[in-house]
Amino acid sequence: MNTFELTILGCSSATPTASRHPTAQLLNIAERFILIDCGEGTQIQLRRYKIKFQRIDHILISHLHGDHYLGLMGLLQSMHLLGREKELHLYCPQELKEIIDLQNKSSQTVLNYPLVYHFTNVQQSELIFEDDKLSIETIVLNHRIPCTGFLFREKLGDRKILMDQLNRYEVSVAEIHKLKKGLNAFNNNGEEVENALLTADPDALRSYAYCSDTAYKEAIVEQIKEVTLLYHEATFLSNMLDRAKATFHSTAAQAATIALKANVQQLIIGHFSARYSDLSQHLEEAIPIFKNTLLASEGEKISI
Amino acid sequence: MNTFELTILGCSSATPTASRHPTAQLLNIAERFILIDCGEGTQIQLRRYKIKFQRIDHILISHLHGDHYLGLMGLLQSMHLLGREKELHLYCPQELKEIIDLQNKSSQTVLNYPLVYHFTNVQQSELIFEDDKLSIETIVLNHRIPCTGFLFREKLGDRKILMDQLNRYEVSVAEIHKLKKGLNAFNNNGEEVENALLTADPDALRSYAYCSDTAYKEAIVEQIKEVTLLYHEATFLSNMLDRAKATFHSTAAQAATIALKANVQQLIIGHFSARYSDLSQHLEEAIPIFKNTLLASEGEKISI
Repeated sequence: MNTFELTILGCSSATPTASRHPTAQLLNIAERFILIDCGEGTQIQLRRYKIKFQRIDHILISHLHGDHYLGLMGLLQSMHLLGREKELHLYCPQELKEIIDLQNKSSQTVLNYPLVYHFTNVQQSELIFEDDKLSIETIVLNHRIPCTGFLFREKLGDRKILMDQLNRYEVSVAEIHKLKKGLNAFNNNGEEVENALLTADPDALRSYAYCSDTAYKEAIVEQIKEVTLLYHEATFLSNMLDRAKATFHSTAAQAATIALKANVQQLIIGHFSARYSDLSQHLEEAIPIFKNTLLASEGEKISI
Repeated sequence: MNTFELTILGCSSATPTASRHPTAQLLNIAERFILIDCGEGTQIQLRRYKIKFQRIDHILISHLHGDHYLGLMGLLQSMHLLGREKELHLYCPQELKEIIDLQNKSSQTVLNYPLVYHFTNVQQSELIFEDDKLSIETIVLNHRIPCTGFLFREKLGDRKILMDQLNRYEVSVAEIHKLKKGLNAFNNNGEEVENALLTADPDALRSYAYCSDTAYKEAIVEQIKEVTLLYHEATFLSNMLDRAKATFHSTAAQAATIALKANVQQLIIGHFSARYSDLSQHLEEAIPIFKNTLLASEGEKISI
């Protein structure tokens, strides 16, 4: 089974604390390394957790509040200074290009590597990346400024070969390639053998939905239905619901409600306001609504 | 004697390491809190060292390489989010205003407090701040892009009153104000008494020169002559002199040579390249040239 692993690099909201950094996550899907948001200090966090950042080929920025992108410029410049030559793909709101260009101009920096922009939009969900292992689509969120989440889905893998059955039906290993793709095979006597007799279903498809920052938005439930893991922001507790509404953020209870309605397998909450040092109340609020809830914690790796 | 204290918040050069942050320093002169440069992660470092960042009223940016200013946007926004209303003064190259304005526009942020710009220039040294305790002037450095250092000088304090002498010469305490300012006093019989009989010299004037980033530049020696403390960048060791020249940086030996020629009291070196994990060679190179040399170390406070 391919790797499908999430590393939390930062889980604070707008103002960082001495122990929590602004938002950044690293996703490794089948050795494709994808950085999701890039708050201030992300390059230092990547070093702290011994992640080779030149392996990152895709960076996704949800929106242009500082706590989600202010670490990007430093990371791009460090990649340059450390000799990167291969393409880097950046998925982001269009205004970010102007911000990057202006700062490279001021520092008289011409990046050694191609920075390929893919602009997101908040009119509708879009497929922004696809290869043989993985697809990524945007999720339109509801925040004070244009903001998209991201939905990552594994592609259907090969069917699994049952070697005992190959022997039993006298099918040569030369037929394996066809069998993996779901086609029937021929045995050593030239007789056709049904694929279903020789293979098992591929691994179940895994998926990850990243929803930050957003007010409570039920309209996303349909798109993220039954994902393996949902990250949903939970900036506040329910006793600050008014503040959550005013700032287009969510409470822990609202994050759990979205997880429940979407019938996801697991929920991880994060983007905690700096006012909370102890996060146990976030869990206490979420778990009665959605049992399988985790708190995001920096440096933690979650295998999906 | 007033406080005159430097705190090192970051002492790495262009690319940070897991243990060293990009450049930032906090200077406290008579309870005026001045931030010198603001590399990525400075607001987190300020919290780590329990420095109340709303007390900072002056931020000085030497130049627009990312490792000297990429933490500024996050700090400005945190000051805003945490309710700052009082003026903040920013001394910086003019292009920084456009960078800040663009990012505030993208995040739809209108700062709650006045941000007052004072643009530096590299044509000549200028006095950029002065009050009753302190003056700050720029030092024109030699870097790949326009860059200024900063020279901080205490103002001459009051003369010190010798109370025993006041009693001996029968001078009333009502005369103290004049005596502090260096004027003569009158005794209880109306006779003039020389100031020198009643007072001692004020505390010696202290000064701090910040020189980063720069190639070796002997022309600065005259301006920083006999400062109490000189911070000079020492990105490389002498065996990388060619690289230092090519990138407009200095070696530890060059920093020490400037300290020697300027006859300063103490030298602190920093802005170390990420290639060095052990910094003992920097000291070994500097000390034979200039004995009173320190290595910058994060979190360290140096009383001047």
